[in-house]
Amino acid sequence: MSQPSTSPSVRPEQAADLAAARAAYEELRAGGLKLDLTRGKPSSEQLDLSDALLTILQPGDVKAADGTDCRNYGGLQGLPELRAVFAELLQVPAEQLFACGNASLTVMHDMVAHAMLSVLPGAERRWADEAEIRFLCPVPGYDRHFTICDRFGITMVPVPLTGEGPDMDVVEELVAADPRIKGMWCVPKYSNPTGESYSDETVRRLAAMPAAAPDFRLFWDNAYAVHHLTAEPTEVLPILAACADAGHPDRAFVFGSTSKITAAGAGVAFFGSSPANMAWYAGLAAAQTIGPDKLNQLRHARFFQDAAAVETHMERHRALLEPRFAAVYEVLERELGGIATWTRPSGGYFVSLQVPEGCASEVVRLAKEAGIALTPAGAAFPGGRDPRDSQIRLAPSFPTVDEVRTAMQGVAVCVRLAAAERAAG
Amino acid sequence: MSQPSTSPSVRPEQAADLAAARAAYEELRAGGLKLDLTRGKPSSEQLDLSDALLTILQPGDVKAADGTDCRNYGGLQGLPELRAVFAELLQVPAEQLFACGNASLTVMHDMVAHAMLSVLPGAERRWADEAEIRFLCPVPGYDRHFTICDRFGITMVPVPLTGEGPDMDVVEELVAADPRIKGMWCVPKYSNPTGESYSDETVRRLAAMPAAAPDFRLFWDNAYAVHHLTAEPTEVLPILAACADAGHPDRAFVFGSTSKITAAGAGVAFFGSSPANMAWYAGLAAAQTIGPDKLNQLRHARFFQDAAAVETHMERHRALLEPRFAAVYEVLERELGGIATWTRPSGGYFVSLQVPEGCASEVVRLAKEAGIALTPAGAAFPGGRDPRDSQIRLAPSFPTVDEVRTAMQGVAVCVRLAAAERAAG
Repeated sequence: MSQPSTSPSVRPEQAADLAAARAAYEELRAGGLKLDLTRGKPSSEQLDLSDALLTILQPGDVKAADGTDCRNYGGLQGLPELRAVFAELLQVPAEQLFACGNASLTVMHDMVAHAMLSVLPGAERRWADEAEIRFLCPVPGYDRHFTICDRFGITMVPVPLTGEGPDMDVVEELVAADPRIKGMWCVPKYSNPTGESYSDETVRRLAAMPAAAPDFRLFWDNAYAVHHLTAEPTEVLPILAACADAGHPDRAFVFGSTSKITAAGAGVAFFGSSPANMAWYAGLAAAQTIGPDKLNQLRHARFFQDAAAVETHMERHRALLEPRFAAVYEVLERELGGIATWTRPSGGYFVSLQVPEGCASEVVRLAKEAGIALTPAGAAFPGGRDPRDSQIRLAPSFPTVDEVRTAMQGVAVCVRLAAAERAAG
Repeated sequence: MSQPSTSPSVRPEQAADLAAARAAYEELRAGGLKLDLTRGKPSSEQLDLSDALLTILQPGDVKAADGTDCRNYGGLQGLPELRAVFAELLQVPAEQLFACGNASLTVMHDMVAHAMLSVLPGAERRWADEAEIRFLCPVPGYDRHFTICDRFGITMVPVPLTGEGPDMDVVEELVAADPRIKGMWCVPKYSNPTGESYSDETVRRLAAMPAAAPDFRLFWDNAYAVHHLTAEPTEVLPILAACADAGHPDRAFVFGSTSKITAAGAGVAFFGSSPANMAWYAGLAAAQTIGPDKLNQLRHARFFQDAAAVETHMERHRALLEPRFAAVYEVLERELGGIATWTRPSGGYFVSLQVPEGCASEVVRLAKEAGIALTPAGAAFPGGRDPRDSQIRLAPSFPTVDEVRTAMQGVAVCVRLAAAERAAG
């Protein structure tokens, strides 16, 4: 730990604060914790909720509703009965929805790769043949979206979030003026990490705004479509319909998955879009695969007979998540009122903590030394750099409630020390 | 059906042959068959062999040997215990093997896409930045390999097969002289569709030959590594070791899968290569996925405790496949001796039938009209064009033995008619 010497101009109460904060931190560090709040991973108890999936298919019971033997090759678009269930939840007509492999991240990556190497509907050329490609990135956002941009050399343009989605005045001006802006990452509901959802006005303006690039696409990552944390689910307008209504039918690529519904990593991902985009994607996907894992799709279709069954299942997740989020708020309110601010999301997997400017990296470093793993400061920003160095993403889903409480008490100690050190100069 | 008029110069016995062939064909067509020999799909009985996979994981029994909960995120390289089993069979050290998603075709496609968009070890630039990329394509070959080339605008250069793999004099000359040749498709064992395997000399020469392109790669599709049709399995030299010995450690990308071992489309694919290629791939894959479906990998690891268990399992496949292949040979020998030639593969999924030059398209057309679906003539050649129009791929795995016999009798009728028509001019 760095131990900056206290400057002579420090007031006596500041010095006392700093001494107390240091003492608390030394006690924390001596505790030898080993806790992890880094990633939005479901807990074992959450995964247990879907264990019936493991044995839901028996020998002799492997056929889809249309008679297809799900053990064999084929079926590029995925199982119709599973697409029917998730079409409603993802607000995409079933006939415009693909059920894919185990990760929506892969589909998102592949859509960018496909656009790099094949001419998108409406595009003048392949993205690989453009001098520069830019994506708008509402911040703070999801680090893996930014990793995809990094991987393909895409310039990321940060756009502030407002609490109702991205600042649309900024977005409209940029998209209308700059033909290099080909895409925009959107997590429309319970956004990672702020938890905010896009208002109706935000959705309508995204759908309607003029774009300088004829092949501009919204990468609509509906990762938390049914992941509510309150009894009143948030509703977001359906983006495909909004785009079609606004005369931009091919603007949106919609992604989703069951990763945080059934088994993370062993679920089913989905992709939905307009008929023109679907045809484009299907032609490319046909060179990449003979078809997805239909057995796993059939497991999911048997487990969820309809969209209502998914909603009921998600209430069980909520019952496990709520006490963990409550433990976060309880500690934050008791320990950090007046020092930090934080979100209280009505869905999703994260609490976004705002610590005093210039302190986030130091908090994460202090926590790490004390055995508490936090998402790296800046991870929610393109290039890993939070210009204010104040945002920390808290992911309370995986640890037990007691572990969340203990970890958050430790985080509070680290925030107090970092803030006291900074105040002391 | 086209009915070319018999030319006046036709000898009487030719005219009689043609009349008999036409009569036989009319009888066939009147039979109203609906049979399919198009694709190398396992039969239901073969898929039944792995039905224990469906229920092999029970709630509470979802952890890997190292304690990983296979229901959750993570593990980019795939399950260690499954990689250990298939490392031996695919002749790749387990630490150099990835266990991936459900299809090796996807991994092959993605390796080309990655090479297009990122600089391969040894390469001067991305393939997307080259004026032209060429791949050597041993012919007849696997149509889906050629589809990948088509999709990426790769020029395909056909190379003849010799019965011991590609003609190495031709390959060596081309690869040494042309830096545009960046890749070569290889199905080293029980090749699709000829069934031939690469001799030790072929493997050694492929590993050792000088290449004008510093980033030349063998795309080593070991699709039929354990898919024997005789009691004496064919051995092919391990390509990674051969390349390393020859001073070209990064030359080979090795692919394989359990698609024709367990469930086609719901199995596990593998990718193996040198440490440098692995590191390159892992860096790119990390942007594409958090990890593969570990539950399905755990199912496979539980089902196959070791490589010997896979070999035993493959004997059960062989017992189901052998009578189907025998039915093909039985009909071909009885009906087409002296008219056509064919392979008798010691493994794999196909019989390659050579009909008189210029007749293959007509045979496939006639068969289709009679209700027998065959792989399109020319499908085994780049661009779908067999220069001699004489090769037909027969895939007898999926139908029952009786259906194979009936279909082959129909094929024989079609070959006789096409040959008689051609002889009649």
